[in-house]
Amino acid sequence: MTAGIGVIGAGLIGTDHIRRLSVGLTGALVVAVADADHDRAQQRADELPAARAYGSGHALIAADEVDAVLVASPGPTHEEYVLAAIGAGKPVFAEKPLATTQQACERILVAETSVGRRLVQVGFMRRYDAGYRALKSIIDGGGIGAPTLVHAAHRNPIVPDSYTSEMAIIDTAVHDIDITRWLLGEEMVAAQVLKPRRNGRAAGQLSDPIILLLETEGGVLADVEVNVNIGYGYDIRGEVVGETGTAELSDTSLVVMRSDGQQRGRVPADWRERFSDAYDRELSDWIGSVATGEAAGPSAWDGYAVSAVSDAALAAARSGERVVVSLPDRPALYERPAYQAVRT
Amino acid sequence: MTAGIGVIGAGLIGTDHIRRLSVGLTGALVVAVADADHDRAQQRADELPAARAYGSGHALIAADEVDAVLVASPGPTHEEYVLAAIGAGKPVFAEKPLATTQQACERILVAETSVGRRLVQVGFMRRYDAGYRALKSIIDGGGIGAPTLVHAAHRNPIVPDSYTSEMAIIDTAVHDIDITRWLLGEEMVAAQVLKPRRNGRAAGQLSDPIILLLETEGGVLADVEVNVNIGYGYDIRGEVVGETGTAELSDTSLVVMRSDGQQRGRVPADWRERFSDAYDRELSDWIGSVATGEAAGPSAWDGYAVSAVSDAALAAARSGERVVVSLPDRPALYERPAYQAVRT
Amino acid sequence: MTAGIGVIGAGLIGTDHIRRLSVGLTGALVVAVADADHDRAQQRADELPAARAYGSGHALIAADEVDAVLVASPGPTHEEYVLAAIGAGKPVFAEKPLATTQQACERILVAETSVGRRLVQVGFMRRYDAGYRALKSIIDGGGIGAPTLVHAAHRNPIVPDSYTSEMAIIDTAVHDIDITRWLLGEEMVAAQVLKPRRNGRAAGQLSDPIILLLETEGGVLADVEVNVNIGYGYDIRGEVVGETGTAELSDTSLVVMRSDGQQRGRVPADWRERFSDAYDRELSDWIGSVATGEAAGPSAWDGYAVSAVSDAALAAARSGERVVVSLPDRPALYERPAYQAVRT
Amino acid sequence: MTAGIGVIGAGLIGTDHIRRLSVGLTGALVVAVADADHDRAQQRADELPAARAYGSGHALIAADEVDAVLVASPGPTHEEYVLAAIGAGKPVFAEKPLATTQQACERILVAETSVGRRLVQVGFMRRYDAGYRALKSIIDGGGIGAPTLVHAAHRNPIVPDSYTSEMAIIDTAVHDIDITRWLLGEEMVAAQVLKPRRNGRAAGQLSDPIILLLETEGGVLADVEVNVNIGYGYDIRGEVVGETGTAELSDTSLVVMRSDGQQRGRVPADWRERFSDAYDRELSDWIGSVATGEAAGPSAWDGYAVSAVSDAALAAARSGERVVVSLPDRPALYERPAYQAVRT
Repeated sequence: MTAGIGVIGAGLIGTDHIRRLSVGLTGALVVAVADADHDRAQQRADELPAARAYGSGHALIAADEVDAVLVASPGPTHEEYVLAAIGAGKPVFAEKPLATTQQACERILVAETSVGRRLVQVGFMRRYDAGYRALKSIIDGGGIGAPTLVHAAHRNPIVPDSYTSEMAIIDTAVHDIDITRWLLGEEMVAAQVLKPRRNGRAAGQLSDPIILLLETEGGVLADVEVNVNIGYGYDIRGEVVGETGTAELSDTSLVVMRSDGQQRGRVPADWRERFSDAYDRELSDWIGSVATGEAAGPSAWDGYAVSAVSDAALAAARSGERVVVSLPDRPALYERPAYQAVRT
Repeated sequence: MTAGIGVIGAGLIGTDHIRRLSVGLTGALVVAVADADHDRAQQRADELPAARAYGSGHALIAADEVDAVLVASPGPTHEEYVLAAIGAGKPVFAEKPLATTQQACERILVAETSVGRRLVQVGFMRRYDAGYRALKSIIDGGGIGAPTLVHAAHRNPIVPDSYTSEMAIIDTAVHDIDITRWLLGEEMVAAQVLKPRRNGRAAGQLSDPIILLLETEGGVLADVEVNVNIGYGYDIRGEVVGETGTAELSDTSLVVMRSDGQQRGRVPADWRERFSDAYDRELSDWIGSVATGEAAGPSAWDGYAVSAVSDAALAAARSGERVVVSLPDRPALYERPAYQAVRT
Repeated sequence: MTAGIGVIGAGLIGTDHIRRLSVGLTGALVVAVADADHDRAQQRADELPAARAYGSGHALIAADEVDAVLVASPGPTHEEYVLAAIGAGKPVFAEKPLATTQQACERILVAETSVGRRLVQVGFMRRYDAGYRALKSIIDGGGIGAPTLVHAAHRNPIVPDSYTSEMAIIDTAVHDIDITRWLLGEEMVAAQVLKPRRNGRAAGQLSDPIILLLETEGGVLADVEVNVNIGYGYDIRGEVVGETGTAELSDTSLVVMRSDGQQRGRVPADWRERFSDAYDRELSDWIGSVATGEAAGPSAWDGYAVSAVSDAALAAARSGERVVVSLPDRPALYERPAYQAVRT
Repeated sequence: MTAGIGVIGAGLIGTDHIRRLSVGLTGALVVAVADADHDRAQQRADELPAARAYGSGHALIAADEVDAVLVASPGPTHEEYVLAAIGAGKPVFAEKPLATTQQACERILVAETSVGRRLVQVGFMRRYDAGYRALKSIIDGGGIGAPTLVHAAHRNPIVPDSYTSEMAIIDTAVHDIDITRWLLGEEMVAAQVLKPRRNGRAAGQLSDPIILLLETEGGVLADVEVNVNIGYGYDIRGEVVGETGTAELSDTSLVVMRSDGQQRGRVPADWRERFSDAYDRELSDWIGSVATGEAAGPSAWDGYAVSAVSDAALAAARSGERVVVSLPDRPALYERPAYQAVRT
């Protein structure tokens, strides 16, 4: 009952997924690796007990021993691999973004809906974080009344010089866009981007920090700080304000130390430290869904909807204006109950 | 060396000031009370050991035994009493707002600068709160690098039905406007008002909550949530984000209780509970300045500048657009060192 | 209605009290100062607007302008001054300890009960701390059920080389003894002292830290850590454990800072920072009671009972055994309702 | 490279281990189940993909497909199964207690040392808790100086009527005994038990709460509150006090909610919620050690040493006196570096 997994993309994140699938999780075995750099694919395969390197993602998808596909190659290649996996009727986990254009995402939606069952899971791992799940549980339980506002911050200690202002939205804020949709159970209808005083630590022309303002269909307003050179740590903050109360992610420090006139706790150093358990649960959930044949985690629709919002945010960043999100009706395949049902 | 204080306005806040001046603070004695309702003035005076009721604020200001004046009458009357006190060369403490129009504030500035020394202190009591002072001390000490963002929230459990959308700015948010200027040592240059989904608990047409966006001359962006029917308590939150760190007001709870599956702390019930010590220190500082003859707390300039920002915010709330703040140069009398110097 | 206060003892704590009485509190005027070092008394008096230096505490107590006496001289002199003040029918505030032997405390009790009204207040200022009062309010309100255990810690950054193992009990732990009695509304019946591994930072033969175990008449067990060279700050901790919950003093930090991979709050540097407000409220309450003619704060009985417990603790520290506290019945003058009523 | 695991004891904890080994962890497959109740063993086996039920633990240990043994049967049976597994040269995980008498533990030590390599791991799962590991990391890193005191509390919401005063030590406090040894890297030399006022919620004659006082070879003093009917939740607290600072387990709440005048966090409902991740890591570490052939987690020595301390504590509870722990020298097989090395 062990699923054979083929991994396309053996870079940083792909290798991390291979490690999680091999060391800590049951029910799956990485049997195939492909990468644009074939030597790298071979090297990863050699490190595994029973894996073969493939010359192309398509060959890997077609291979008999591959029951399910994990796509961790560069964003622009996602569409073709995801479509190929759908075409082969194989479950596919796509790292975010699902695809790099809204049109590409739409083609994936069309392909999957024509198959008639969910084959795609998108890598929005925050939905598997225990903190966000406790937050959602409080909101859904009515503990703070109907939400009116969301305050969020996504802080990175540092980014490489190659990081661009667009990446602050399509690589970084996409997580906040998705998790806000998920927490509220609402789609976004408009986006605006505010550019405060630049952090002198930011390289080149990078707009850093920014505030991303998002409006949901129900009128909830979310302000998301994206601040990627803040030095002190990787700090993810989120508060949902309701009509009668608020709920907020706690500090994640495990120990309070008192020394030198201070009471101290630890801030995570990076996303690996902060979300390691969420990545494990995400893949575990995916492997479980491979066994049942029906994906239940973040869907192609989620990938599509987030892409529509990040497109609007990119336009808003360029124009300085509020930009309306263009989103068609949600196909029946992705009706909310399914999309909200995350296995615990 | 006890200063005779005359109090104009014997309503809720005036009576609270009389109590603080009489019971807990040294160096001052309330010797005169005036109110539009003369019976009320007489009643307050009768409760005091050595106070006389006056038929008008102007008569009170002119009285020999009155060394300094505290104005707590309705906002539209502030201008005339403050000007009269300046004319009489007597120190005057004016509750916020300093005056209800920018022109009125300007007339006060002109009068005070022509005297050539500071006689006016405005009732921005948050500057005397121990939490905000610790926050400012960290910012000024460089502990978080140069500020780029401010996140703030001003939450009231409930407001009366008579509370209007304008009051959310001119009565409520003025405190956040002033304290943000003070924390950063910068003036505001623009304001915008966002209106999320209404809280169903808000009466009539009240816009509640709102987000007030403020930009400083240095480009710092502040988002201020004003949320006045949130039920759960009076909760004042503030975080300043810098280039290398952040500093944030702590929860004010004195005790952690654990019971019934929860770990709990208290949220203040109202502004009296939250800022009682700040009001005491504010008046104590004012009495000290009366003795020295030179006001050092929040100045007429602060009152004026806050009024310019709240005017812009009111226009922004009406138009839905970003509105530029119109503010002349700061007269030499109000140069920053003086305005920042708050006695500890 | 301003009370003339005579202060005996112009050392560190006496001078601090003079400052509080002079600068921040109404209703009292320091009119007389006495000290074994007459020059020092003269110097303090010269700094005050209307005070006279006296050659002896007894002359000060007898002086007409002295309405009430504050005793802050060395402990061994407390008894004679307190007895003299009682003899003169004048209210007297005695810094802790009330007196240095249980017999001396008993003589004070006898003197006061023969007068038939409370003239003595003892300097257990923690009862005026907002945190301890919130703690007592939760206990008395039944929020945690009947108490079974108390965990407390009294940590000082450092003590001078002259500090002895006995002082850890009679100067330091007395505050914890009193506040535990007050929180629980119960007397202590036995004490034991445990001596863990010495802190290498402690000078000479000092036993540091120690654990003081106290048992109340109702069987509640309190463990009090006394740790006086811990370096990192002045940290006072207290948790009361009940049958259904617990309540614990919160950290007192006003601001959370995040920088350099840590989330930080401030620990008070010393007792002045931690208990400044409590000292103010203590003296304010005393001045109020001087006006009414009947003391309501910590009583001579409290001073006596604490002295009985600290005597037992000293014996326990010497013997290593559990030592029973010897305490007679509480005279009617000190019945609990009065002793618990602390003005707010 | 999947290890065949045989599980002896299919009760509550055994079933929980079977679930963890089957659902979430790689590298192991439960292939055999034995239980005194053979029907229960058969039922568990039937639920698994490839497991057989055995009529006795000894038959299971002897079975070829069993590579390693997990003993979760009642305590009195542990000795024979652990000895049999050692005899068969198979790695064995024994739930705590290792065995119910010190003599039995000694026989296991003798057997394992005669084999000359570690085959036994004992179920002290707290060493795998992220909070305790962060605490140990701070202590070992010198962040608080040399430890002098430990304050701990082990609070259960409720225990069944069958729970006895002895169980408070041998079933409950054993975890605190082991984790304190591990945090400090020191053995215990004496124990004392204090019995405060009983919790009225405790059934029958149960001593609840108790304070267990432990002294280490280096003189560190640990006070451990065991409080098993406290109702409000499962709350595990621990603070290590050093010469220059302290480090303390944080509250584990993931979200701060504010509502109804309070700021709230969740307290775990039971040990499953609090230590679920630790149980996973414990078994994962054990499976890893099965592959390497050498156990690295909590050892038979740890089981033995804890049993020596809990025997002393039982005697202390009976006598009311301080009882010295009798512990022979640690065999070379269990020298500290090995015992402290816990895989991350």
